[in-house]
Amino acid sequence: MKSFTKHLWFETEDRIQFINITQKVNQIIKESGIKEGLVLVNAMHITASVYINDAESGLINDYKKWLKKIVPLNEKYEHNMTGEDNAYAHLMRTIMGREAVVAVTKNKLDLGPWEQIYYAEFDGQRRKRVMVKIIGE
Amino acid sequence: MKSFTKHLWFETEDRIQFINITQKVNQIIKESGIKEGLVLVNAMHITASVYINDAESGLINDYKKWLKKIVPLNEKYEHNMTGEDNAYAHLMRTIMGREAVVAVTKNKLDLGPWEQIYYAEFDGQRRKRVMVKIIGE
Amino acid sequence: MKSFTKHLWFETEDRIQFINITQKVNQIIKESGIKEGLVLVNAMHITASVYINDAESGLINDYKKWLKKIVPLNEKYEHNMTGEDNAYAHLMRTIMGREAVVAVTKNKLDLGPWEQIYYAEFDGQRRKRVMVKIIGE
Repeated sequence: MKSFTKHLWFETEDRIQFINITQKVNQIIKESGIKEGLVLVNAMHITASVYINDAESGLINDYKKWLKKIVPLNEKYEHNMTGEDNAYAHLMRTIMGREAVVAVTKNKLDLGPWEQIYYAEFDGQRRKRVMVKIIGE
Repeated sequence: MKSFTKHLWFETEDRIQFINITQKVNQIIKESGIKEGLVLVNAMHITASVYINDAESGLINDYKKWLKKIVPLNEKYEHNMTGEDNAYAHLMRTIMGREAVVAVTKNKLDLGPWEQIYYAEFDGQRRKRVMVKIIGE
Repeated sequence: MKSFTKHLWFETEDRIQFINITQKVNQIIKESGIKEGLVLVNAMHITASVYINDAESGLINDYKKWLKKIVPLNEKYEHNMTGEDNAYAHLMRTIMGREAVVAVTKNKLDLGPWEQIYYAEFDGQRRKRVMVKIIGE
């Protein structure tokens, strides 16, 4: 069994911003030389997500609008009494998920026709990491 | 390390429909000959989910009713201005999840007493795939 | 490839209770001797979650309050007509997630700076298990 680990770094312009990272993950898989296995892609910060869905800007706006409806930005959150103002970001990231585990076949991401891997930032404008770890052969 | 990949195909009768796929996944594990490892089971389409919960028809109705409450079918979604009408299905699938990663022990799914693997279709009545990939030894 | 499996057992005092299990998972990884790989940590019961977020008591209260808002405890759930009273717990666990898959590097959990692994119980006060399965080398 081989394993290979790399990190992606982000510093978004907006506080809430979604970034398609599919090509970057594929490049790391290529670099690893691993042909068959699994890749774990996870946010290493607890106010950001990695999720898989459509690369369609209208849908991304729908996600943002819907998340604000079910997770109000300015509710009276206890977490925010510690001096933080990002309780909403912890909850949004919980809905969108921390990680994706994807099949690696023939040294590539083995995705469905419309599957794209996204980094979703909910409290950005500072440097944050995503872990990409591949195991296989 | 060995790996083994198969796909399950679905074409549901209803647009929203949940299907228990536990036995089918177990058969693929048996076929793989892999005794110890992990199995990844993921929807390859972005309006469907794979999740683990109870095989109880009342609960499945509760899921459907609850999802329609927190993801209204006919909100003014931007995604639907592209000619689509399935924005709700992308959001529902996000709540229910894309994938399950399950332990494989003694050449079988190593599930808890009530854990059953479900395929949840939110925009069906057309052919769609689920990936089953096992790695281990 | 090596694999190593252990279970953690819980019997919570409260019906809804969150427990930080990071140290316990790290101990199992140490015991396994596996240096590089992946660890799967999943609830084996379908009214409990494993998720990764902050070890901050205010945030944990925010989670509980928010979950009760989007999953009312006493809605007329069909599942509860079977004699159960825990339909809400199945839905809450679905939002919080069944499992976490985490990188193992140098015989340790490879977590981000604030990432902590939690067991979230939604229908406790009885014995329940979490699976910890490590694969790697």
